[in-house]
Amino acid sequence: MTDAKQKILSSKDVFTAKLFTVKEEVLQDHNNQLHTFHTAYTNPAAGVIPITSKGEIILINQYRYIFEKRILGMIAGYIEEGETSLQAVKRELHEEAGITAGQFELLAKIELARSVAVQTYHIFLAKDLEIGEAHPDSDEDIEIVRLSLQEAVKKVMNGEIYHSPSMTAILMLDKLKREKKI
Amino acid sequence: MTDAKQKILSSKDVFTAKLFTVKEEVLQDHNNQLHTFHTAYTNPAAGVIPITSKGEIILINQYRYIFEKRILGMIAGYIEEGETSLQAVKRELHEEAGITAGQFELLAKIELARSVAVQTYHIFLAKDLEIGEAHPDSDEDIEIVRLSLQEAVKKVMNGEIYHSPSMTAILMLDKLKREKKI
Repeated sequence: MTDAKQKILSSKDVFTAKLFTVKEEVLQDHNNQLHTFHTAYTNPAAGVIPITSKGEIILINQYRYIFEKRILGMIAGYIEEGETSLQAVKRELHEEAGITAGQFELLAKIELARSVAVQTYHIFLAKDLEIGEAHPDSDEDIEIVRLSLQEAVKKVMNGEIYHSPSMTAILMLDKLKREKKI
Repeated sequence: MTDAKQKILSSKDVFTAKLFTVKEEVLQDHNNQLHTFHTAYTNPAAGVIPITSKGEIILINQYRYIFEKRILGMIAGYIEEGETSLQAVKRELHEEAGITAGQFELLAKIELARSVAVQTYHIFLAKDLEIGEAHPDSDEDIEIVRLSLQEAVKKVMNGEIYHSPSMTAILMLDKLKREKKI
């Protein structure tokens, strides 16, 4: 069972969308058997949780047509061509919530999945906030929600916040706050 | 900005793989503008964290060819046709780690993403464990890792565990343990 034995024999693009590419890959496993997989490689995204000077966090409650309802979670978006993840969250903060922040901290680089539909996601914390007017895209129907970190943790634990990267970010912030690191 | 204004005008399958379907959808937004989206609808999955009588948790360190390395995280898999999420985690526990458990608790139903490549994920806790021999699929190269919940939380916070649903599960368990609910 050594890692070296698994190798990709071939890889080809079979479907291309704006924000992901589906590849068909043939894997030779560590038992020398062949397997064909289809994997959606999604563009990387970045999310950010702004914290006010009073220790409140700012989330968005955005209508998501896929789920036919609003979903409460962190401000986030896809990293655009030529952007860094930090530039992406600065842009999303401004567009979705009208926020500019003086201080950013990278909390984590995470993977949403280990197979099938994979996506890298960078999570930031933002402080020293100036809150102005939001500039959402025309298809974005967004409510800004300001709440204490404790209230957010409660909503994670009771299922009201169920977006995995947002749950991860809020629980990490809670852990850091208890350790007095933020 | 009422939710009622956003509606899907058309939806068609444009690519079908074993574990996901890509749909092309035309959305009429709340400003009456039209947008075409491609979304990968991935089959639902389920993950489980077994806890031993000593309070240790059991994770897997599995080689993932997509990342060209092993990834540490919870035992998980796709829910098969006709299975419930609980039946799926019982099967995965047996196959990947040789574990049967007498007690299960649903911790959370989460969504990995809010757009583009969406997947529902059920997270369980398993107790009253009997640990036997694993029966992995031929392409699964798996190491079983047993560690304290505290060690796992440390690995989440320092970036060694970076799979979002596993991070969410471990931090939720940590919160429940501090509240003496598990």
